[in-house]
Amino acid sequence: MPPLKNDRYLRAILKQPVDATPVWMMRQAGRYLPEYLETRKQAGDFMSLCKNAELACEVTLQPLRRYDLDAAILFSDILTIPDAMGLGLYFETGEGPRFERPVQNKADIERLPVFDPEQELGYVMNAVRTIRKALNGDVPLIGFSGSPWTLATYMIEGGSSKAFTKIKKMAFAQPELLHMLLDKVADSVILYLNAQIKAGAQSVMVFDTWGGVLSPRDYQLFSLQYMHKIVDGLIREHDGQKVPVTLFTKNGGQWLEAIADTGCDAVGLDWTIDIADAKARVGDKVALQGNMDPSMLYATPERIRQEVQTILDGFGSGSGHVFNLGHGIHLDVPPENAKVFVDAVHELSRSQHQ
Amino acid sequence: MPPLKNDRYLRAILKQPVDATPVWMMRQAGRYLPEYLETRKQAGDFMSLCKNAELACEVTLQPLRRYDLDAAILFSDILTIPDAMGLGLYFETGEGPRFERPVQNKADIERLPVFDPEQELGYVMNAVRTIRKALNGDVPLIGFSGSPWTLATYMIEGGSSKAFTKIKKMAFAQPELLHMLLDKVADSVILYLNAQIKAGAQSVMVFDTWGGVLSPRDYQLFSLQYMHKIVDGLIREHDGQKVPVTLFTKNGGQWLEAIADTGCDAVGLDWTIDIADAKARVGDKVALQGNMDPSMLYATPERIRQEVQTILDGFGSGSGHVFNLGHGIHLDVPPENAKVFVDAVHELSRSQHQ
Repeated sequence: MPPLKNDRYLRAILKQPVDATPVWMMRQAGRYLPEYLETRKQAGDFMSLCKNAELACEVTLQPLRRYDLDAAILFSDILTIPDAMGLGLYFETGEGPRFERPVQNKADIERLPVFDPEQELGYVMNAVRTIRKALNGDVPLIGFSGSPWTLATYMIEGGSSKAFTKIKKMAFAQPELLHMLLDKVADSVILYLNAQIKAGAQSVMVFDTWGGVLSPRDYQLFSLQYMHKIVDGLIREHDGQKVPVTLFTKNGGQWLEAIADTGCDAVGLDWTIDIADAKARVGDKVALQGNMDPSMLYATPERIRQEVQTILDGFGSGSGHVFNLGHGIHLDVPPENAKVFVDAVHELSRSQHQ
Repeated sequence: MPPLKNDRYLRAILKQPVDATPVWMMRQAGRYLPEYLETRKQAGDFMSLCKNAELACEVTLQPLRRYDLDAAILFSDILTIPDAMGLGLYFETGEGPRFERPVQNKADIERLPVFDPEQELGYVMNAVRTIRKALNGDVPLIGFSGSPWTLATYMIEGGSSKAFTKIKKMAFAQPELLHMLLDKVADSVILYLNAQIKAGAQSVMVFDTWGGVLSPRDYQLFSLQYMHKIVDGLIREHDGQKVPVTLFTKNGGQWLEAIADTGCDAVGLDWTIDIADAKARVGDKVALQGNMDPSMLYATPERIRQEVQTILDGFGSGSGHVFNLGHGIHLDVPPENAKVFVDAVHELSRSQHQ
C-alpha cells in the first residue's frame, strides 16, 4: 500500500500536531449528492449498492471528488451484521429498514450464529479492499459498525422504533436474555471490525445511535459495557500503524467521562454539547470528533463559517479535534454548502495550529 | 374553594417538609386507561374531549380514582394555543397533530393575533374551573402549556417532525423571523397560563418537548430565553398561595444550571440524568421533578419497586422532589403497574422524611 499523502485525520485522532483541523462528514456518501442517486439507481436498491464492491467504492469516493475531506468512510449499513445472522434485512419504501425474522425469545437468541465475517460479510471486506486500493493513499479509510445496543434495538423491534418498547420490556423484565443477545452481537462486532481492519480500514468507529434513550445506569449496563468489550477486543495496531477507535453515542453528552474511560481513542459528539465543556471534561484522555448541527448546512455560507469558527474557538488550540457534523448530513442540504463547511474548517483552523 | 386536603405536591415543590414524596404521572389521564378510551369514544374525537369541560374533567379525575396521586393535571393539549391563533389544528389518524395553515413566512407571523385566552380558549378555562370544583380540595390542580420553541416546531413544520428541517432553516437563515414568532408565542403562553391560574390552576408546568434537539447556544437563544420570559411574566401568587412553576426540557439534562437560573421553582428531569447528579448541580436552587423511565412500567412489580428505591436513594433525604416519570406514560402499560409505581413512591419514601 502506498504511504498516506494526507494523514491529518489519523494524527489529530492520536493527538499529534497537525497543520489544520481535519474534517469529514458522517454519511458523506449519500443521498444529498446527485451522483450518489445516479449510482444507486444503477445498483438497483440500497443493499445491492452495499453488496457491489465497485459501486460501493464509487459512492465512497464521490464526496472526496467534490470536497477536500480528510478521511473516507466505507459505504455500508450498520444492519449488515444482523442480516448476516439470518434476520432477513429488507427495506420498505418510506418505512426504513425491517427484519423478516426479528428476535423475540431465548430460542431466537440461542439460534443466532457467530459468523465468519470473511465469509458471510465478504462483500463488505471486498468493498474495503477495493476502496483502499482506489484511494491510493490519498486519505485514510474509516471502517464502522453499529453498537450492540443499537443493533439489538433493530433486531428486537424488527425495524426502526420511537419508544423502543420491545427491547425495553426485555431489558427490564428479562435482562439476562438481553445480555445474552448483546454479548453475542458484541462478539460479532469484534470479528467484523477486526476483519475490516485486516482488509484495510485504518480507523474504526462504533455508532451507538440509540444509547441515548437509556437511563445512565441502563446505558452503562446495556450499551457502554458492550462497547467497552469491543474496544478491548479490537486490533489496535496493524501493518505497523495504530488503528484508532471512535465511540459515538448520540445524546450521550452526559456520559462522556464513562465513554472516554473505555480506552477508546476518540469520542464522537453530537451538537447538544458545547465542545469546550467536552474538552474540559475528557480532552486529556481522548480526541473529540464533532460537533456542528447538521441542520446548519441549510444556512447561508456566512452563518456556516461563523458556526465553524465558534466550534473551533470552543475546542481551542492544540490537536485532538476531528471536525465533523454531530450526526449524518441531511439528504436535502445543498451540496455546495457542504463545500463551504469543509473549506471553512481548514481555512479557519490553520491559525490554531501554528 | 375548600382548603387542600393533600398538599404534599405543593409543599415538595416549594421545598417544605413532607411526610412522603409526592407523585404524579405525566399523561396520567390517557389512553392506557380503559375508562379514558370509553369517555373519549363518547366525546367523538380528541379535540372534542378537550373542548367539553365535563368530559375533560371526567378524564382528569379518572387516574385519581385508581391511584393515590398527589396532583391532578388539566386534560388538554399543548397545541390549543396555535389552534387559537388560527392555524387550524386537526388530527390525522396515525399521523398525529397537523395544522391546516402552518407558519411559512413573515406575513404569516405578523398576521398571528395576540388572543384573549378567556375568549378564544374559554373551553380550557371552563375545564380548569370544572375540575377544580370537582376536586373539592383533594389534591392540587396543575395547569400547563407547551414552550414557545416546542409550539413553534409544530407551527412551522405543520405537525410532528423528526429532523425539524423547516424551523431550523428559519433559525439559521432568518433568525429574526423566528424570534418574532417565539416572542409572540411567549406572550400568548403568559396570557394563557395566567388565565389558567386565575381559573384555578394551583401550579403550572411548561413542556419543552423539543428543546433538546438544539445546540447549547441555540437552546439558550431559541428556547430557554422565551421560557425565562414566561417565568418572569407569570402570576406567582394567587389567592394568598404561591403558584409554583416547573420547566421541563426533554433531553435538557446538560443544561440544568441554565434552566434553574430562570427563577422557576422546579425543573423536570427525563430519565437520561442521574437525579443525584441533578440534585448536586441545581438542588439548592430548585425542586426536581422526575425521573423514572416510563418504559420501566413494563417491568415486574419487584423491578418497578427497585427502580423507585434507586431514584429515591439518588435524591436522598429532604424535601424538594416530586416523583414522576421522565416523560408521558406509554399507552400500552398495564394500569396495575402504575399502581405499583405510585404506591411504591409513598411507601418507600416515608423513611427519608422522618
